[in-house]
Amino acid sequence: MVSKMKRLLIGRPMKNSELEGEKLSKLKALAVLSSDALSSVAYGTEQILIVLMAVGAAAAWYSIPISLAVLGLLVILIFSYRQTIYSYPTGGGAYIVAKDNIGLSSGLLAGGSLLVDYILTVAVSSSAGTDAITSAFPVLHDYRVLIALTMILLLTILNLRGITESASVLALPVYLFVFAIIVLIITGFIKYAMGGAEPAVPVEWGSAANNVSLFLLLKAFSSGCSALTGVEAVSNAIPNFRAPAEKNAAKTLIMMGSILGFMFIGISLLAYWYGIIPSEKETVVSQIANSVFGRGTIYYIIQGVTALILFLAANTAYSAFPLLAFMLAKDKFMPHMFLVRGDRLGYSNGIIFLGVLSAILVIAFHGNTEGLIPLYAVGVFIPFTLSQLGMMIRWIKLKPSGWHVKLLINTIGMLTTLSITLIFIFTKFSQVWAVFIFLPLVIWIFMRIHRHYIHVADQLRINIQEEKLQIKGSTVVVPIGGITSVVRNSLSYAKSLTDNVVAVYVGFDDDSIHKMEEKWEVWNPGVRLITLKSSYRSIVKPLIKFIDTVEWKKNETDHITILIPQFITKHWWQYVLHNQTSLLLRAYLFRHKDVVISTVTYHLDK
Amino acid sequence: MVSKMKRLLIGRPMKNSELEGEKLSKLKALAVLSSDALSSVAYGTEQILIVLMAVGAAAAWYSIPISLAVLGLLVILIFSYRQTIYSYPTGGGAYIVAKDNIGLSSGLLAGGSLLVDYILTVAVSSSAGTDAITSAFPVLHDYRVLIALTMILLLTILNLRGITESASVLALPVYLFVFAIIVLIITGFIKYAMGGAEPAVPVEWGSAANNVSLFLLLKAFSSGCSALTGVEAVSNAIPNFRAPAEKNAAKTLIMMGSILGFMFIGISLLAYWYGIIPSEKETVVSQIANSVFGRGTIYYIIQGVTALILFLAANTAYSAFPLLAFMLAKDKFMPHMFLVRGDRLGYSNGIIFLGVLSAILVIAFHGNTEGLIPLYAVGVFIPFTLSQLGMMIRWIKLKPSGWHVKLLINTIGMLTTLSITLIFIFTKFSQVWAVFIFLPLVIWIFMRIHRHYIHVADQLRINIQEEKLQIKGSTVVVPIGGITSVVRNSLSYAKSLTDNVVAVYVGFDDDSIHKMEEKWEVWNPGVRLITLKSSYRSIVKPLIKFIDTVEWKKNETDHITILIPQFITKHWWQYVLHNQTSLLLRAYLFRHKDVVISTVTYHLDK
Repeated sequence: MVSKMKRLLIGRPMKNSELEGEKLSKLKALAVLSSDALSSVAYGTEQILIVLMAVGAAAAWYSIPISLAVLGLLVILIFSYRQTIYSYPTGGGAYIVAKDNIGLSSGLLAGGSLLVDYILTVAVSSSAGTDAITSAFPVLHDYRVLIALTMILLLTILNLRGITESASVLALPVYLFVFAIIVLIITGFIKYAMGGAEPAVPVEWGSAANNVSLFLLLKAFSSGCSALTGVEAVSNAIPNFRAPAEKNAAKTLIMMGSILGFMFIGISLLAYWYGIIPSEKETVVSQIANSVFGRGTIYYIIQGVTALILFLAANTAYSAFPLLAFMLAKDKFMPHMFLVRGDRLGYSNGIIFLGVLSAILVIAFHGNTEGLIPLYAVGVFIPFTLSQLGMMIRWIKLKPSGWHVKLLINTIGMLTTLSITLIFIFTKFSQVWAVFIFLPLVIWIFMRIHRHYIHVADQLRINIQEEKLQIKGSTVVVPIGGITSVVRNSLSYAKSLTDNVVAVYVGFDDDSIHKMEEKWEVWNPGVRLITLKSSYRSIVKPLIKFIDTVEWKKNETDHITILIPQFITKHWWQYVLHNQTSLLLRAYLFRHKDVVISTVTYHLDK
Repeated sequence: MVSKMKRLLIGRPMKNSELEGEKLSKLKALAVLSSDALSSVAYGTEQILIVLMAVGAAAAWYSIPISLAVLGLLVILIFSYRQTIYSYPTGGGAYIVAKDNIGLSSGLLAGGSLLVDYILTVAVSSSAGTDAITSAFPVLHDYRVLIALTMILLLTILNLRGITESASVLALPVYLFVFAIIVLIITGFIKYAMGGAEPAVPVEWGSAANNVSLFLLLKAFSSGCSALTGVEAVSNAIPNFRAPAEKNAAKTLIMMGSILGFMFIGISLLAYWYGIIPSEKETVVSQIANSVFGRGTIYYIIQGVTALILFLAANTAYSAFPLLAFMLAKDKFMPHMFLVRGDRLGYSNGIIFLGVLSAILVIAFHGNTEGLIPLYAVGVFIPFTLSQLGMMIRWIKLKPSGWHVKLLINTIGMLTTLSITLIFIFTKFSQVWAVFIFLPLVIWIFMRIHRHYIHVADQLRINIQEEKLQIKGSTVVVPIGGITSVVRNSLSYAKSLTDNVVAVYVGFDDDSIHKMEEKWEVWNPGVRLITLKSSYRSIVKPLIKFIDTVEWKKNETDHITILIPQFITKHWWQYVLHNQTSLLLRAYLFRHKDVVISTVTYHLDK
């Protein structure tokens, strides 16, 4: 039943050899990897305007230079990451670049920061998508958490089905969104140029607004920078690209950058020209669409695809998280389970882990995860900075042809991202302080896991030239509760292995022990019976004491086998009807003794 | 840690031989077994008055004849149960008496009915006790469920500590309650006789009240009969008495009946003389105490011990439920686990089961379990009736000296309890219909459990004269993931048992398989290596397929052992860091194959 459900939801299992078919073409990669970055268009301009409005509407014109600054930063990031892609064709996430060039701790800092960030992305995006839905249908407001969780569940299932299939499903909304926004921008430009846009007049360029401090401008700039989160997704995911992976990845990155830059600056200009002021009740994009098209079909299409892409932004994390977890697991900083490809060749454990953790966040915050946005932005810029720094060190070390230009690009990148990180921390400390708790914690966990794996490997390693098998004698102890077919079966097995077999019976009174001994004599299986009397009604404790004695007496070179007769009921619910002595005994021995624990199963027919 | 907590809460384990010391003296038995019955005094009269008030205050005088009728019923029950105690000195609950004399189904009907009833008792009593507390301290009202659950937890722990110890704790409040009520009655009588009680005047005896129908009187009578629940506790618990058990039990029963009867009729008379009318806000006992003593220290003491005994009424169920569950388990109608005595010689599983189920009821009803009272009363009178019927049949069958009188007593008992059951069903059907669902269900579950145990016993039974051991050959299959110290250990063990050992390696590509084969040749352990290639990244599936093949090829008389090498990490949390292939394999084989599953444990040091 469970396995049928799984087939239905996830699809048939795929062979290893089908892996290449799962890789992404440029266009599909754009859909899968850019929804996070592109969706920023829906709120980037708005974030800037909200900060500026704090000092009055006259400051609105500052949004244009700030947007240009963000655009400049985007260009810097795109060029920096293009260099990373060519240097790390097997996948150059911040973790790899920082680890390779700066050192392990920086790598872990970048990796841990990104891992937590992907979880935040899913939680924040699914909540934002839900808000878009409940804005359109207010009756659904009470079901916010449920809707967000359903979205997370859907994304998880989609990603478990495999990358290509989810790309096919996700491509359409992304393309629709890009198309819709471009149509909006072009129509808006034309309408403005023809002087047809006069519901509101833009504030004059260069108007003197009061109280515009540097702090405010920096805060507005850093808010606008949240539009840049998601740009790193391409360089993390190079192994998912079809060959030649690095070229395709670089082209995809440039495509994404161009589209994002065009849309972002376009929306900012329209917002300025149409004199739009951010409002609690209506988003900036919605106001622009309203001004340009009025509340008609086109307006609702734009709103619909915007809601959809906000929701799909979470999908970027679903591509990036499992890959990063895989790389950390390969280096023994995360559990091995993140190494395993599932039935559909995705790293299922990473996908499920991401889904569960973000679902927990959504539940914990009752679907109001907006407060996490700055935390999530700072969590992106830390690895950005480390990655750029790593590239700088790399150029200085390797000195390839033209390395001065490359170093310059990455240096500019590093300085800007570092500045933004610091601006975030200084202007929004009350919202991002948690980063100083969870990052050290995550890194500490990485270290503990790593140490454990190293210890285990040390203990398991043998010298195959010298350490051969050691043949020893064997003592088999069979705990019995009576003379039954299961006991007969177990003793037959034990006697087949060795003559050194002891049956142990635990009785609660002299009477039952005496009866057992008499019956044993009649049966006469050729096995010595030891009877123990338990004063405390426990079967396990006297048995363990007896096993201790056997262990103590045994020849140094003897194996001890505890052979547990066990019948298996036909239906699982019948299991509770029988006492779980053997389970307790097995659990105890498992943890505490270096013995062999054997179970002779005997399946009942009815 | 867990075991230390257990020691602290429950106390040190006790030997079987300490059992006799745990048995009850008459006075302690009175405390443990009568709190349910005696606590009825707190609400019995009130229940009658509430029904009568439906037709007006003039009907109040009917409470005296109705109370006398209830008293008469009490006398009948006491005499009937006294006969049962002497006939069944080893414990004559309704289950035993009905099963012995009427038939198995009747026994199960009585037993099932009582079991469910005890759970209801705990839920209802703990809620009622909570109400008493929150009436005194209204600020606690929001914590009702928590308080009730704490009470259940306390009772459960107390009972897990053992019967005598809980008796010592419980004796005092019961005695205090009896003493307080007797003082109240005597003082009230004297005050009334001296004409000092004139806050209200009783309605005249025989006043004509309108609309007093037979239905109403029967309903009032059946409500009053809820005061009789708990009377059966003594006859169920005879094995808990100190020797001579039946004599002590009979004496305890008479003592309890006399006290209950005196207190009940006393309260009814005082309520009539003092002209008390039941109110939503104040209980009848509280009004009487107020009239007699005024709101002074004595009043608060009476209220306090009344609250306490309501809460302790639940304890009767804690004595009776585990014993009844034990008897049903002994007859294979309930899981074996109810047969086991815990560390402190009580039937811990029954105690815990009762605690958990009643806690679930309290949570499900948010602590408002008053609606369950009629259900709980009818659940008591069904086994009462069956028990009396059983005794009647017994006298007719055995015909001991003086059997006519004995038959007469039980016939009267049977007819009255049967009538009350029917009155309950007819006058309060809307509250007791659930009994017609859960009783058949419980009996069906009993039957299913019984059938399962019989089937298992059939399949386990062997003829010890004929069915001896069968010595067979053995094939050992060792799944390995590489050449490590754990594998070396496991193969050494396997080779010690038999030469017929096969190691199986599952690889995901030709390369890893080839490498493994080369390494194996170097190591040369003298064991054949079989390599399997898995196209689907599953290790378990190819292994199971291989085991199928071995099973199919094997000599009919050969045992197959699957030997699983397993290292045990030092700390439990490290367990998740390793893949659980062996766990999956073991679980699959356990359920599906008649093979021997051996685990060679290897404990890591760090």
